[in-house]
Amino acid sequence: MLIMEMDKDQIIQKVMSELQKQNETQAAPAGCIDVKKCGMTEFVGTAAGDTIGLVIPNVDETLQGRLEIDKKYRSLGIVGSRTGAGPHAVAADEAVKASNAELLKLELPRDCKGGPGHGVYLIFGAEEVSDARRAVEITLKSLETTFGEIFVNDAGHLEAQYTARASHVLNKFFNAPLGRAWGFVGVSPAAIGVVASDAMLKSANVEVVLHASPAYFTSHSNEFMLFITGDSGAVKQAVIRGKEVALKLLGAMGEPPTPCGKPYLY
Amino acid sequence: MLIMEMDKDQIIQKVMSELQKQNETQAAPAGCIDVKKCGMTEFVGTAAGDTIGLVIPNVDETLQGRLEIDKKYRSLGIVGSRTGAGPHAVAADEAVKASNAELLKLELPRDCKGGPGHGVYLIFGAEEVSDARRAVEITLKSLETTFGEIFVNDAGHLEAQYTARASHVLNKFFNAPLGRAWGFVGVSPAAIGVVASDAMLKSANVEVVLHASPAYFTSHSNEFMLFITGDSGAVKQAVIRGKEVALKLLGAMGEPPTPCGKPYLY
Amino acid sequence: MLIMEMDKDQIIQKVMSELQKQNETQAAPAGCIDVKKCGMTEFVGTAAGDTIGLVIPNVDETLQGRLEIDKKYRSLGIVGSRTGAGPHAVAADEAVKASNAELLKLELPRDCKGGPGHGVYLIFGAEEVSDARRAVEITLKSLETTFGEIFVNDAGHLEAQYTARASHVLNKFFNAPLGRAWGFVGVSPAAIGVVASDAMLKSANVEVVLHASPAYFTSHSNEFMLFITGDSGAVKQAVIRGKEVALKLLGAMGEPPTPCGKPYLY
Repeated sequence: MLIMEMDKDQIIQKVMSELQKQNETQAAPAGCIDVKKCGMTEFVGTAAGDTIGLVIPNVDETLQGRLEIDKKYRSLGIVGSRTGAGPHAVAADEAVKASNAELLKLELPRDCKGGPGHGVYLIFGAEEVSDARRAVEITLKSLETTFGEIFVNDAGHLEAQYTARASHVLNKFFNAPLGRAWGFVGVSPAAIGVVASDAMLKSANVEVVLHASPAYFTSHSNEFMLFITGDSGAVKQAVIRGKEVALKLLGAMGEPPTPCGKPYLY
Repeated sequence: MLIMEMDKDQIIQKVMSELQKQNETQAAPAGCIDVKKCGMTEFVGTAAGDTIGLVIPNVDETLQGRLEIDKKYRSLGIVGSRTGAGPHAVAADEAVKASNAELLKLELPRDCKGGPGHGVYLIFGAEEVSDARRAVEITLKSLETTFGEIFVNDAGHLEAQYTARASHVLNKFFNAPLGRAWGFVGVSPAAIGVVASDAMLKSANVEVVLHASPAYFTSHSNEFMLFITGDSGAVKQAVIRGKEVALKLLGAMGEPPTPCGKPYLY
Repeated sequence: MLIMEMDKDQIIQKVMSELQKQNETQAAPAGCIDVKKCGMTEFVGTAAGDTIGLVIPNVDETLQGRLEIDKKYRSLGIVGSRTGAGPHAVAADEAVKASNAELLKLELPRDCKGGPGHGVYLIFGAEEVSDARRAVEITLKSLETTFGEIFVNDAGHLEAQYTARASHVLNKFFNAPLGRAWGFVGVSPAAIGVVASDAMLKSANVEVVLHASPAYFTSHSNEFMLFITGDSGAVKQAVIRGKEVALKLLGAMGEPPTPCGKPYLY
């Protein structure tokens, strides 16, 4: 009977680990990096957060007109995801620094795969297809870094991002002064974000360029976000302080939040 | 010990299949078609997508005024669902063709039961309760067809709809010219919908009457949709092409998408 | 072999109950009422619906300006949740009755942890930190009552709230006449809410002060809500009637809805 007990425990353990595996697979689908497998030349790749990267070499003129895209941008790079948005904004900012593409659209669906945040839909425009493709490739690659600062538990999530030198994407869509340091912290439930923002502003001499809440500058996500600029050291210090406060308070609601990748801010 | 191993596998299999059954039950609750069971004469029936059909024979005047409904519509037919919206729009269009009811309201909650799409809330008005009830009944019945063109996988979904002759619902709410062919493709994540739309417009000579994206004409769903008109053959060809492209790209993000019913477009 | 069969069933049962326990843990995280555990003096407590209560004793002036908060409110009480909103509005109304705090903000994220409703983000302002803290404490405490009138099943949910004497929160944000009885019923899917509202207005002599639907006065939640005032007996009777109708129709879509606490209306 002792052996039977052990067997039972082993069986239960095996079932639980199988379910665990299923959950992990759902969270991070394998994706298809092999273009031949998809049979679509428009497919560039996939990344964390159910992100897909696509390219249209020569866009249909009617569609171009509908989307109010300047005729000179014949080639479009398109990135979409079910979760995120902050990681994609910073990644797209890196992409425009290193390619001849411009970010034309950035929209925030209220998605997050059932979670309290967004997801993203963005379009790069370029005159050459190689530039559009390169912008998408850099974005997908940069997500490996930027997703590292998303922390999640059952009660909510927090996100921190920082760049020493903001480029056109963060300037156009998130009020960052061009070429200066920029950072932000966003937290769900939104209430925690207010306390984190207060701590950020008390921790360093920084300037606020934007804030967001469920009824303001979000698509009704359950988040409060503060976007700041200033000297690079001060911005980084404030972002790290906001993250610290948010992690503690989220931890008071549930399990300690875990990062979706390798954190880059400390 | 060999037998023990077999037993273990059997047990694990049984647990997994039991969980599977639970999930299926959640996805498609049995519903109550039997009015007596509900004890409410207002109840008409249920359908796919957590859809319920209801009728108010003689609406309260205060409520009628609040909803800005013309006084001549004493009877209301009401349909609501947790997922869908496209299937309901086309089904309601069939309903107004075959009944003396008019569609007064069609609103898009951002719901989709945790998914990236909508759900629907719509109201028919009629002078006689039999007409309101008939409009709801036809809508529920037509959903059996229209839900067949919703395909889902873990990464997102795609929807295609087509009618050879649009009536007042599609005209009023989705810009379809009365009596002409009309179709649309909607995809989540939205990024894939842009590439599908480009392929649609390159595949046939059709005219765009509307498009939608997370920040435009949706309730912040994570979808890009293209609505088209033209000759019936061309519209159908374009819709099928858009569906084909979307299925391939969604398949590149996860498992092959599966339809929620029997597809009617091929 | 008979014993083996029994063992199998026991094992399966144990696995299922373990999974059940996991789900329950997810639905109601233990929370951290012990400030020392969080190490944050800003933390006040947690409550049902993934609610957190927080206090900022002396808010940063830049943040105060950003949020357009009057300079006299140096201390902020902040409450946020992933689900609810109605329970929090009524609870906050109790809080302002019993403290020297005012409700400055109440925003509705479209969250509901994957469900069809909202969640909340609200801010109390006070001149003294003790008043801000007390407002948050009363709100958290009152949620024990107000969450009792949220009923949920797999197809949707319904909510009923009632107060004999509305104060400043319900007056400012939900059109309640000061000092008079006020109540509301909200149902998802929205279609059911229309039928429940019709029944409410036919059951008693009450006055409508507000209604909400997916495209009107919600953040695109899948709900229809009716807010009423009048004599206390009539308001209570109408709310109970609306709840009764909604429970029956929701029950026609799935399992009988279960309350999230102890109902207080009957």
